Amino acid sequence: MSGPDMQRLLLQLEVDQLNAAYAAALDERRFDDWPAFFVEDGSYVVQARENFDRGLPLALIALESRGMMKDRVYGVTQTIYHGPYYTRHVVGPARVLAAQDGDGRGLVRAQAHYAVFRTRPGDASEVYNVGRYIDDIVRTDAGLKFASRRCEYDSEMVLNSLIYPI
Amino acid sequence: MSGPDMQRLLLQLEVDQLNAAYAAALDERRFDDWPAFFVEDGSYVVQARENFDRGLPLALIALESRGMMKDRVYGVTQTIYHGPYYTRHVVGPARVLAAQDGDGRGLVRAQAHYAVFRTRPGDASEVYNVGRYIDDIVRTDAGLKFASRRCEYDSEMVLNSLIYPI
Amino acid sequence: MSGPDMQRLLLQLEVDQLNAAYAAALDERRFDDWPAFFVEDGSYVVQARENFDRGLPLALIALESRGMMKDRVYGVTQTIYHGPYYTRHVVGPARVLAAQDGDGRGLVRAQAHYAVFRTRPGDASEVYNVGRYIDDIVRTDAGLKFASRRCEYDSEMVLNSLIYPI
Repeated sequence: MSGPDMQRLLLQLEVDQLNAAYAAALDERRFDDWPAFFVEDGSYVVQARENFDRGLPLALIALESRGMMKDRVYGVTQTIYHGPYYTRHVVGPARVLAAQDGDGRGLVRAQAHYAVFRTRPGDASEVYNVGRYIDDIVRTDAGLKFASRRCEYDSEMVLNSLIYPI
Repeated sequence: MSGPDMQRLLLQLEVDQLNAAYAAALDERRFDDWPAFFVEDGSYVVQARENFDRGLPLALIALESRGMMKDRVYGVTQTIYHGPYYTRHVVGPARVLAAQDGDGRGLVRAQAHYAVFRTRPGDASEVYNVGRYIDDIVRTDAGLKFASRRCEYDSEMVLNSLIYPI
Repeated sequence: MSGPDMQRLLLQLEVDQLNAAYAAALDERRFDDWPAFFVEDGSYVVQARENFDRGLPLALIALESRGMMKDRVYGVTQTIYHGPYYTRHVVGPARVLAAQDGDGRGLVRAQAHYAVFRTRPGDASEVYNVGRYIDDIVRTDAGLKFASRRCEYDSEMVLNSLIYPI
């Protein structure tokens, strides 16, 4: 195998590690760590697949910077009233679609399918939200970060409201 | 780590990428792309685990060439009446069981566990079909292709009928 | 990429293969193979996330050696009366948290999110147990083995009783 081919393959592992760390932070409820998975002006969008397929801009959540993400985390953890629940993300191996690594920062386009399960106290676990992460990832001094993460979810009927990040 | 050991490990990444591309094609409803994941005389079989375990040949679907797969796609997209639904595949990392790479084409035997979730319009997502891919994969000039993909599913009661490929 | 960085990345693949082989053994009901995934004095603990989060030692199952695991398998397959069901594990790519490979045996700390689906005869598949594997893994002459596997599950209400290993 040629060096570049192998580098491309190994990118899957780096993205998998990023996705796994992201999922762990959310499922362990370390919400304050969540904005740091993005670059300073990174964007986080949660959009129904139906709108995505039709090219409609309508999104359930659209945050355009770490600052907005921090506000969101504050809202979720401090002010929004909601019943407690656990989440568990199971994310498949990332599909690496493109990689530009020339300038030392580089941009990786990757996608991964996810399922998020929800467990409410005293209840059985249930399918909560399934869909696809559509990511632009850059390499920074602090490791890989999302320049853009778009969560395109299948579920038209979002179980109750979607409180925590996906 | 020895070179052959590493080559074997890296095969997981190649198979993961193949599985992810396959899942993306189906979930994005690019059904016309589906037969091209197989070699010309590739086979695609969907079989209940119970029949597999008992060595019974009975299969829900058994296609023996790309031509049959194209017919199937035509049937699914043009002629079979069914309620619309989205699918989402979450596939675990592939288990690479054997690899023969000597002759430049090579045969890889691999398996992966999958869960397919279904979402009907206006409804919550639900578990649709879970099981195991049992694959023979060959290396062609156009990349890895399935010589044989057997979808062995656990669910004895298939929710409604199984329309789209698994 | 430096050699050590690559070695660390490749560890994910080795752990993924271990996780996939473990899941395959359980889902294919090769329960007698299960204890051999652990070292002789390995431990296997199944604990509710709520207890884990609160630092409570209470666990649903706690086995401290291969011998205890063999007893458990005997109990499950020979003596405990229960309705039959299939399981299917879908495990995400492992998150490799630490690796010490100096002495040739080495210790790997890794985690992975899992979903286990259950299918009872004549019924649809359902979410059975979701959670996180928290693993200490050592390298032996017979390959990677669990020194400790802790299954921390979200589901407070375990569907019926939990019979087979997770």
